[in-house]
Amino acid sequence: MAQKPSIPKGTRDFGPSEMARRNYIFDTIRSVYALYGFRQIETPAMENLTTLMGKYGEEGDKLLFKILDSGDFLRGIDASAFAEGGTPKLAAQLCEKGLRYDLTVPFARYVVQHREELTLPFRRFQIQPVWRADRPQKGRYREFYQCDADVVGSDSLLNEVELMQIVDEVFRRFGIRVCIKINNRKILTGIAEMIGQADKIVDITVAIDKLDKIGLDNVNAELAEDGIPADAIEKLQPIIKLSGTNAEKIATMREVLKDSEIGLKGIDEVEFVLNQFALVTASSQPGSASSLELELTLARGLNYYTGCIFEVKALDVEIGSITGGGRYDNLTGIFGMPGLSGVGISFGADRIYDVLNQLDLYPKEVSTATQLLFVNFGEAEAAYALPALAASRRAGIRAEIYPDAAKMKKQMQYANAREIPFVALAGESEMAAGKFTLKDMQTGEQKLVTVEELIAQIEQ
Amino acid sequence: MAQKPSIPKGTRDFGPSEMARRNYIFDTIRSVYALYGFRQIETPAMENLTTLMGKYGEEGDKLLFKILDSGDFLRGIDASAFAEGGTPKLAAQLCEKGLRYDLTVPFARYVVQHREELTLPFRRFQIQPVWRADRPQKGRYREFYQCDADVVGSDSLLNEVELMQIVDEVFRRFGIRVCIKINNRKILTGIAEMIGQADKIVDITVAIDKLDKIGLDNVNAELAEDGIPADAIEKLQPIIKLSGTNAEKIATMREVLKDSEIGLKGIDEVEFVLNQFALVTASSQPGSASSLELELTLARGLNYYTGCIFEVKALDVEIGSITGGGRYDNLTGIFGMPGLSGVGISFGADRIYDVLNQLDLYPKEVSTATQLLFVNFGEAEAAYALPALAASRRAGIRAEIYPDAAKMKKQMQYANAREIPFVALAGESEMAAGKFTLKDMQTGEQKLVTVEELIAQIEQ
Repeated sequence: MAQKPSIPKGTRDFGPSEMARRNYIFDTIRSVYALYGFRQIETPAMENLTTLMGKYGEEGDKLLFKILDSGDFLRGIDASAFAEGGTPKLAAQLCEKGLRYDLTVPFARYVVQHREELTLPFRRFQIQPVWRADRPQKGRYREFYQCDADVVGSDSLLNEVELMQIVDEVFRRFGIRVCIKINNRKILTGIAEMIGQADKIVDITVAIDKLDKIGLDNVNAELAEDGIPADAIEKLQPIIKLSGTNAEKIATMREVLKDSEIGLKGIDEVEFVLNQFALVTASSQPGSASSLELELTLARGLNYYTGCIFEVKALDVEIGSITGGGRYDNLTGIFGMPGLSGVGISFGADRIYDVLNQLDLYPKEVSTATQLLFVNFGEAEAAYALPALAASRRAGIRAEIYPDAAKMKKQMQYANAREIPFVALAGESEMAAGKFTLKDMQTGEQKLVTVEELIAQIEQ
Repeated sequence: MAQKPSIPKGTRDFGPSEMARRNYIFDTIRSVYALYGFRQIETPAMENLTTLMGKYGEEGDKLLFKILDSGDFLRGIDASAFAEGGTPKLAAQLCEKGLRYDLTVPFARYVVQHREELTLPFRRFQIQPVWRADRPQKGRYREFYQCDADVVGSDSLLNEVELMQIVDEVFRRFGIRVCIKINNRKILTGIAEMIGQADKIVDITVAIDKLDKIGLDNVNAELAEDGIPADAIEKLQPIIKLSGTNAEKIATMREVLKDSEIGLKGIDEVEFVLNQFALVTASSQPGSASSLELELTLARGLNYYTGCIFEVKALDVEIGSITGGGRYDNLTGIFGMPGLSGVGISFGADRIYDVLNQLDLYPKEVSTATQLLFVNFGEAEAAYALPALAASRRAGIRAEIYPDAAKMKKQMQYANAREIPFVALAGESEMAAGKFTLKDMQTGEQKLVTVEELIAQIEQ
């Protein structure tokens, strides 16, 4: 036998059970997005490299999968270009297309390209795979799905509130308890202003973030090592030690940032989102299990976000962020359409999959594919079963007939392996009575039933 | 402003309305597949080129999109390799991965790679995009979806019957009247045997297929031009003139092929599928609108199929085949696992989309995204609306609030552009009454209602 075939490293096949679980995740997110008025779009897997290059930093450019031009791909390339080895410059000559690296840049491209057709504010969601030539490792793949929703063309903070509600609703449906951390780029800018260290804000948040692990003295030592002057570290103390409820944190920060206009603006924004979210979730079912917490050390996508920043952590599983997002003010500027503000979130489907698996939270229906199998005893018996099979399907029951008249044992093994909960049998005596023997595979119980009774029993 | 961005030729963006329609198509096919016990799998967009090359003929190899290796892609390639230009051989050195060209080869690879986990017969469906570096033209794209279902590991003709039922059910749900043409490779082999012209069978079917257009004399002339001897053409006359019901055609063909064992086997197979299909659709709702017709000139995928061959034509729109399939006996042989028989179908989503558009057959719900818009008159009014918005969504109504307190006119224009059927307004007087004004955007009618009444009205 030839060598067993394989797939490229970092990619995955999804078999039927995994697909059922993944579809449950995607369908849940899709339904909630739709409930909030977001509409789906899809963009091509391949984008022009001119669209993708330079959008993800130098490192990102290297991680783009590039597609060799069709036909004579060497046409017009000078032979000397090959002397330097496989450089990014040569790659750009051999390839004019690449696979999308995320959904954000294609979305920005989409908005600019289709701006005449769009009604603003435009709320879109998009659930598609992306590809990155990253070194594969546990939990990091070269092909993975992103599930993004964004609103562009509106500055209103109600959009942020709605995105928090979406996060709350999605995880409520999954049964995953989460904490949503919120921060605001403007608060971080305010802090940097206050201590005169605008370029050190990332170092500062990284150091402060270690408070629980290494203690206050070590945080202060690390800040000093990072080159923050003693007086600035002194001023940072109330921020490092910040604790209490959101309201308490906000009160403290208002005092600390009282001289920073932008810092106070950031606090106002966070306060609005926190209050409105509390108002609307209080009016909702009590099942809303998410807490929303101001977290000043949250600094994700700092080069990118300009207002609120969010991150979601699962409370019952040790795993990184499972959802994140924020406001950006210049998404489409890179394509020559400045001044369009947007805010978005992205659910991490692969990590949510891991959390649902670990907590075993999938509803039972998710794993049930076929509900009913008709055993095949031969041509006449199969012909007798076919109308009943058709009637079952008309009633919405997912049903099959074993296609071959194989040994009974083999057919029952098939039903077991496929975890089919009901099996219908009809031999001579059932056919004479115009009935079927229906076997409940869980209890082993058998009943002689008409087609109508069979359907009723399974629908139960 | 910079140059408007674009996408690679032959690819498409799908905006919200197109996506709603496409999802309707995919969801319908997916539900019917599931109803018949097929389970979904997904395979990676990228496959190893060793998996793809040589599977689609020399022309197919050229149409594969190849992905430039990451890192130093020139490593280990001799400089002299570049002298000959961008040849396929050099491409294979620069690239070890390619984008999938269809779903069949990845499925075969999947079955062989995962054979230890699979329970046979294995019924899988797969709905994913494929990529081909074809010259783009009207109706032909470089990225398009395929919607395949296959059963492997069973020789039973019941699988063929079930696939015909699936086709019937899918098009019944779409409301598209179709004719399913059926043929069998064994019949064609029998005909070739009978006249001693095994290598001419494609020419023969092509010529016979023109009967309606060019008449019997011209068909016979074309057969002679194709090099078919006069006595063979004489023997073909009953086949060329074949007409009548399926039963009449079968009776004629039994007589014509009475000396060909394989030909008679093919007729038996077709007859079984026709009879069982008739039996089961007679037992079903009378709405089953497909006719199933023996069509001897159907010769699609002749190098590939070994038994029944199907093709579906829409009756009310001039367009090519919108679905096709057949039985193959050696799908996994190319990966070293011989002897596994399979049968499958593939729905052509893009053409079905065109047919549904031309006949305007989409259900009304498909185009309704958001059902209810709350107008935003300012911060206090928005805060009043949010709990009602949350209650509407809890009732399953897709609803939004306009995020900004923009001019009333702008918000109503937004509702119109988005085709939102209901708008809820609450200013001072509504707030004092604890109610909302609900406007039906179609009739213009306005009513003062409570939140419960508002929900009831929209759910109607």
